[in-house]
Amino acid sequence: MSLPPGRIHHIAVVVRSIETSLGLYRDLLGLPLETIMDIPSDRVRIAFLGVGESKVELVEPTDDTTGVARFLASRGEGFHHLCLEVENLAEELTRLAISGVELIDSAPRRGAEGPVAFLHPRSCGGVLVELIEALGGPSWRGLGMGDPA
Amino acid sequence: MSLPPGRIHHIAVVVRSIETSLGLYRDLLGLPLETIMDIPSDRVRIAFLGVGESKVELVEPTDDTTGVARFLASRGEGFHHLCLEVENLAEELTRLAISGVELIDSAPRRGAEGPVAFLHPRSCGGVLVELIEALGGPSWRGLGMGDPA
Repeated sequence: MSLPPGRIHHIAVVVRSIETSLGLYRDLLGLPLETIMDIPSDRVRIAFLGVGESKVELVEPTDDTTGVARFLASRGEGFHHLCLEVENLAEELTRLAISGVELIDSAPRRGAEGPVAFLHPRSCGGVLVELIEALGGPSWRGLGMGDPA
Repeated sequence: MSLPPGRIHHIAVVVRSIETSLGLYRDLLGLPLETIMDIPSDRVRIAFLGVGESKVELVEPTDDTTGVARFLASRGEGFHHLCLEVENLAEELTRLAISGVELIDSAPRRGAEGPVAFLHPRSCGGVLVELIEALGGPSWRGLGMGDPA
């Protein structure tokens, strides 16, 4: 048995407009805005706001061709996924696959904040679950992500 | 401006069966089970699993008359709400209401883990947001919830 997840890394919310949503999450709820960035490869803009050891990620599609854009068109704004931090992502994925969990990503890939992989909501009670490897884990080196410091 | 929320207190997931869902969240993802309890007044059973300073709450309807049961029937299992911890819940609710946020609960009420209130997803980008008051805040005394220690 590997270590349990150490924290909720973030929960992601699909929004029409990051600027509009900051009116709630930053200005009314008071969560500090940490960063806004374009992720051209995913055709989204994202914002991270801090809350304790976790973050709220706002995800805004930048065109209508992606899964996130279709999610927004069909369901409207709302919760998108839950991201848990693990120590050794490749090891977790192997263990979960052996246990019958359906993986969207069978191996760690580069995410905006570290090596990530998604589990299918069919295996997770309807929740899209992302796993991210804690800073300095083996997949950081494996993916050539190095030390972001 | 009051203090920003201190942490994600929990995220709640509606499930058909807590026991089945423990197969994923406890046994495969490795989150430690903290408690399972019946909440007869809400006609649900709930389970809390720990992850860092936060929890995952599994919510299982015990009959088909409640909003949670209708949620499960119409949308299936999945994310239900995000709960943020605040220092002074009554003050937050007043501030949010003045700012035009639509409140489901206009005043703190007794929750399983402290004084709580829900904000309407219409005001929160499609996300049902719950606020819970940190242990020892003024609503604990106001609701006669005392010190749970």
